[in-house]
Amino acid sequence: MRGLWIEDGTLEFRSNLSLEPRANECRVQVRRAGVCSTDLALHRGYMGFRGIPGHEFVGVALDGPLKGQRVVGEINAGCGSCDRCKRGLERHCASRTVLGIFQRHGCFAEQLQLPLQNLLVVPDALTDDAAVFTEPLAAAFEISEQVPLSPGMQAVVVGDGRLGLLCAHVLAKHGVEVTLAGRHPERAERLSGVRHLSGLFEAESPDGDSSYDLAVEATGDPTVLPRLFTHVCPRGTIVLKTTSEQPATIDFAPAVIDELTIVGSRCGRFEPALAELAAGTLDVESMVDDRFPLESGARAFERASEPGVLKVLIDVE
Amino acid sequence: MRGLWIEDGTLEFRSNLSLEPRANECRVQVRRAGVCSTDLALHRGYMGFRGIPGHEFVGVALDGPLKGQRVVGEINAGCGSCDRCKRGLERHCASRTVLGIFQRHGCFAEQLQLPLQNLLVVPDALTDDAAVFTEPLAAAFEISEQVPLSPGMQAVVVGDGRLGLLCAHVLAKHGVEVTLAGRHPERAERLSGVRHLSGLFEAESPDGDSSYDLAVEATGDPTVLPRLFTHVCPRGTIVLKTTSEQPATIDFAPAVIDELTIVGSRCGRFEPALAELAAGTLDVESMVDDRFPLESGARAFERASEPGVLKVLIDVE
Repeated sequence: MRGLWIEDGTLEFRSNLSLEPRANECRVQVRRAGVCSTDLALHRGYMGFRGIPGHEFVGVALDGPLKGQRVVGEINAGCGSCDRCKRGLERHCASRTVLGIFQRHGCFAEQLQLPLQNLLVVPDALTDDAAVFTEPLAAAFEISEQVPLSPGMQAVVVGDGRLGLLCAHVLAKHGVEVTLAGRHPERAERLSGVRHLSGLFEAESPDGDSSYDLAVEATGDPTVLPRLFTHVCPRGTIVLKTTSEQPATIDFAPAVIDELTIVGSRCGRFEPALAELAAGTLDVESMVDDRFPLESGARAFERASEPGVLKVLIDVE
Repeated sequence: MRGLWIEDGTLEFRSNLSLEPRANECRVQVRRAGVCSTDLALHRGYMGFRGIPGHEFVGVALDGPLKGQRVVGEINAGCGSCDRCKRGLERHCASRTVLGIFQRHGCFAEQLQLPLQNLLVVPDALTDDAAVFTEPLAAAFEISEQVPLSPGMQAVVVGDGRLGLLCAHVLAKHGVEVTLAGRHPERAERLSGVRHLSGLFEAESPDGDSSYDLAVEATGDPTVLPRLFTHVCPRGTIVLKTTSEQPATIDFAPAVIDELTIVGSRCGRFEPALAELAAGTLDVESMVDDRFPLESGARAFERASEPGVLKVLIDVE
């Protein structure tokens, strides 16, 4: 089959790929996929990935009870039998594989495979473009599973890229007063009830006080975390939504003195994200800056790495 | 009055000190005080402290309704009128002073002053030596206010100094299965139900797995935190009980991938600590390695900074 392949830091289109059938898994004919910054990092050599990348997709199930239906799929495939899997935390299974990221080929190809229980049927009203956003929106919803959110809470989301926008939406949906800090004032305007703040905490916060109950780091810049320490109120929470390939030098004393809580946050359950997209209150389609056919995957990766680009799609069909 | 004085990195005994009376505060005649690693840091210039150091004490109230009674005192004095003070979080008041640490003279002198509401009467059965441990034990109890503890939970306390021992005791009291990691196997033996692990996580954990639900960092070594990332299970918690004068270089990716929670933890309420000491289930007096009269404060600081010393007391009376 046709698909993209990453090996030794190179990305290329290949037309001679095949999938090794896995027991108890469902094949999916990929229709559309999204390029994520993790894909760009894998291309640069992150995690030594070798194989078909891609983990944001919508497609059609080819086997089993969902055959013929349009589906999205949770990207972590657990062993199914360990304690974590039994508690619904397959995404923390020690033996997990991760679609297009770890030990499992991804969605930048005509077909992929996932366990049946990873697949969710996409409501008819949802476009393919919107459905591709289920995975990143689920990552934003993960915050609401980890941190108690309440109306009136003051939060700042640092970084107004795609993930920052989705996090801001999820917080605002829970009644949180959200400030979106970034370089693109027009992006906050897409979201109802979210105010904009220029800059990525290069300088002091406008009121000069440690005023936020919650801060969400969505920049991928590891130097942002220690700067957030002075902008979150005592006993406040900082959520780390991004990883970086670079370590950061951090003085933790302010976080201890103010008794801050720092929460690492990664993939989320697809169900609330899919329901939110189906409700139609979030315009994700306007975040699509460009699209390329599968054969032009290298150009899609280049375009996705340009500053200011929110989302690049790959049309597989 | 007589007391110790820190200025420009020097510590000296002075006999000509006096306290400026503060409105609505109670004077306390200090009987006994403890030297803490924070005192040693202030001596090295931490926070640019200038004044009388010391914040662990037992004494006798000289004014007001508690006059003549033996007391210990919470070290953070809030403004009393801000939102945080009203919520009982005086220790996070933005205008707070801190006994012997910030903007307030401490207990290494014949007298100190604190707001009346900071003082707690010491039960008769408690010795002066034991009462001095109320402040550090309260800091250990703070963990139980911040992190849900449940029987059977697996925890590791890293660092078997005084604070590590007290944290291990508090966790064990809540039914947590505690491993105390440090260089002194005999210290874990003082605590019932606490097992010992050699070393401070220089190497892999014995089972080679990320097995702990909770880790408490009580070493003061900022390089310990990132090493703990691989020893705590996904969705687990790391409590930072110490600050360091040095920053650390940290790769946060493992903490994000495993969705760890990192909790800064500082001073705690005195009430549960005093009740625990009064119950007599914790032998703190055996932690006292040495004691010096107030005039020999410099020697007390030297002794407290020697490796392996748990607690040095200063006899003020």
